[in-house]
Amino acid sequence: MKASVYRKEHFNAAHRLHNPDLSDSENQRVFGKCNHPNYHGHNYELIVKITGDIDPVTGYVIDLKTLSELVKRKVTDDFDHKNLNLDVEEFKTVIPTAENMAWVIYNRLRPSLDSKLDLKIQLYETERNFVEYPA
Amino acid sequence: MKASVYRKEHFNAAHRLHNPDLSDSENQRVFGKCNHPNYHGHNYELIVKITGDIDPVTGYVIDLKTLSELVKRKVTDDFDHKNLNLDVEEFKTVIPTAENMAWVIYNRLRPSLDSKLDLKIQLYETERNFVEYPA
Amino acid sequence: MKASVYRKEHFNAAHRLHNPDLSDSENQRVFGKCNHPNYHGHNYELIVKITGDIDPVTGYVIDLKTLSELVKRKVTDDFDHKNLNLDVEEFKTVIPTAENMAWVIYNRLRPSLDSKLDLKIQLYETERNFVEYPA
Amino acid sequence: MKASVYRKEHFNAAHRLHNPDLSDSENQRVFGKCNHPNYHGHNYELIVKITGDIDPVTGYVIDLKTLSELVKRKVTDDFDHKNLNLDVEEFKTVIPTAENMAWVIYNRLRPSLDSKLDLKIQLYETERNFVEYPA
Amino acid sequence: MKASVYRKEHFNAAHRLHNPDLSDSENQRVFGKCNHPNYHGHNYELIVKITGDIDPVTGYVIDLKTLSELVKRKVTDDFDHKNLNLDVEEFKTVIPTAENMAWVIYNRLRPSLDSKLDLKIQLYETERNFVEYPA
Amino acid sequence: MKASVYRKEHFNAAHRLHNPDLSDSENQRVFGKCNHPNYHGHNYELIVKITGDIDPVTGYVIDLKTLSELVKRKVTDDFDHKNLNLDVEEFKTVIPTAENMAWVIYNRLRPSLDSKLDLKIQLYETERNFVEYPA
Repeated sequence: MKASVYRKEHFNAAHRLHNPDLSDSENQRVFGKCNHPNYHGHNYELIVKITGDIDPVTGYVIDLKTLSELVKRKVTDDFDHKNLNLDVEEFKTVIPTAENMAWVIYNRLRPSLDSKLDLKIQLYETERNFVEYPA
Repeated sequence: MKASVYRKEHFNAAHRLHNPDLSDSENQRVFGKCNHPNYHGHNYELIVKITGDIDPVTGYVIDLKTLSELVKRKVTDDFDHKNLNLDVEEFKTVIPTAENMAWVIYNRLRPSLDSKLDLKIQLYETERNFVEYPA
Repeated sequence: MKASVYRKEHFNAAHRLHNPDLSDSENQRVFGKCNHPNYHGHNYELIVKITGDIDPVTGYVIDLKTLSELVKRKVTDDFDHKNLNLDVEEFKTVIPTAENMAWVIYNRLRPSLDSKLDLKIQLYETERNFVEYPA
Repeated sequence: MKASVYRKEHFNAAHRLHNPDLSDSENQRVFGKCNHPNYHGHNYELIVKITGDIDPVTGYVIDLKTLSELVKRKVTDDFDHKNLNLDVEEFKTVIPTAENMAWVIYNRLRPSLDSKLDLKIQLYETERNFVEYPA
Repeated sequence: MKASVYRKEHFNAAHRLHNPDLSDSENQRVFGKCNHPNYHGHNYELIVKITGDIDPVTGYVIDLKTLSELVKRKVTDDFDHKNLNLDVEEFKTVIPTAENMAWVIYNRLRPSLDSKLDLKIQLYETERNFVEYPA
Repeated sequence: MKASVYRKEHFNAAHRLHNPDLSDSENQRVFGKCNHPNYHGHNYELIVKITGDIDPVTGYVIDLKTLSELVKRKVTDDFDHKNLNLDVEEFKTVIPTAENMAWVIYNRLRPSLDSKLDLKIQLYETERNFVEYPA
């Protein structure tokens, strides 16, 4: 009786896409207006998907209140109303694209979850651009 | 030429999460405000996913009007504007968590579908909490 | 420089539409499946609209964090994960239709707001049925 | 480090479901009101999903601006504000059901994408009816 | 105790914007791709707003089930899965812009509603283009 | 025959709420986490509402393509993927709250619109916080 449960959270943050190993014109060509030096921002919608057995005592794969608090403690408390590039440790060396952000969020949550549970991250940067990690 | 088709339906119902094998304080600890004895309720969004070959005559995996009527007959006629715990047979012995509800809905629909078709149930309890069965 | 600001909150509740002054068959005729005796429920979306001058010091009509906390204290703490008919004082004598709920919510919030601010309540019972008070 | 990225586009089109190999009454039985001879129409939402490795230089699986322009050039420029049956080459011989449309869109995009990238098409005909190809 | 109630319905239709009193090039200039001769189409979302006193017996301004059936009988049965220009009487002489459609819908509903009730029509042609009549 | 038409646009921007006439602790008290010095950001949804007579030749209050281009030229080209505080002239002296942003957008659009048309701005900072100007 394996099921998946999803919990949707959100945070608002500023970011900039910039690779310091590339020249300014290469950065402009690759990242376009997302390379704007003064930052821009998004309302991110984060969906955390957990797959596992339904517990016969609770009827839950995982308590979504517990999951929500974990996401808050490990991710959104650090990301919300922040500048990802300047304020979040990982993005000092990792470009905060949606793909990399999903990977960072996965790595922040994975150690706190039972190894029998599978984890997948969906991240909406806008209503029209979103990502999933792992594929 | 295998494709998946999805049909979204909805129903409004009251429910309560309570395990009679647990003490009141254990129920309160596990289910929190979802254990409230007088019930609360939700607008459930139910998405039924069917996977199979595209029929070259109709261009359909399955006629979504037929699927919609099946879901109505087997599920939403029984669940809509009802109290899940008191009015729906299965939930007299199964706790109506979203996970268990998806499993019950799957079991109600599976026997009426061609065995060559795969079935998956997605159920949104709220915009922020949703589940999928089977995983 | 008058503007309106809106804050959207939500709560999940069970309710039943029933007028004790009407016969059972009249209740059934008027309220249909909403009269079901065991209750059903909804995910209510509540939008509180405040109209007033933009404060030149803050750039706010009203701080939406303050408004959100007020709505929580006066309304959603009492309504969320509850049975409106059994658990909320006003609905012991008032039928919890969306119209009456908007009126009750208005009366709970109005005394706590500066008299220079106008107040309007929008309440979504479902995505397809919603109301506004006052008109 | 495989991830999936999604880009959502839209187009508005007229269509009619009709199989010239079937009689009029068979068409009516199979396709119902979708068989109406004067056409009807939809706001289609098209989601293109690409799965591949995250490029360590850009942090992208694929640049979503590039993908958006590809979808525009190969699909939506031809489909938007058109009559699918009369104006789009493929649908002169293929019934424009959502399933077949997803298959046509897949075939239009696949040759322009790196063979290391996986491609999946999701197409919403309405908010309640949608499909995915390949399954 | 005046309140407003809203009921949201939907229909899918083909249409074309074309004024026979204008030349082809003027029609092209004014209506652009909406002038395409083979029609295109939309998923229309129709919101009917009724304002009036809350009835103390029912707690309703108007029963939304009754309103929904009225809208079905007077509007959507005629518009849904149709070609507005060819199949709907009024649009043989009136261009089916969203503005004119809202006016036509208003005139179809107004005679069936109690004169003490106010009526307003909102019509979404797409998520990004919508209208309201009367203003 | 007065109607209202709405056009929805969007832009992504970074901002910070800060009044230089207040002390740091007052700014913190008034603006909370929105005062974060490194900026945060949003996906803004901008709805421009125009009210006027329906033109009998076109069936339009105003051509929404023309309106969309005007909004792009006067507003979103300047705001999108920018830092409102650092990059947008008006917000060097005006705090970029949603209320003030709606007022700035109104003043940028008003001079380009026929004086017979009424203009109203709705701005969504998040799905839960939004404003309207003028009231």
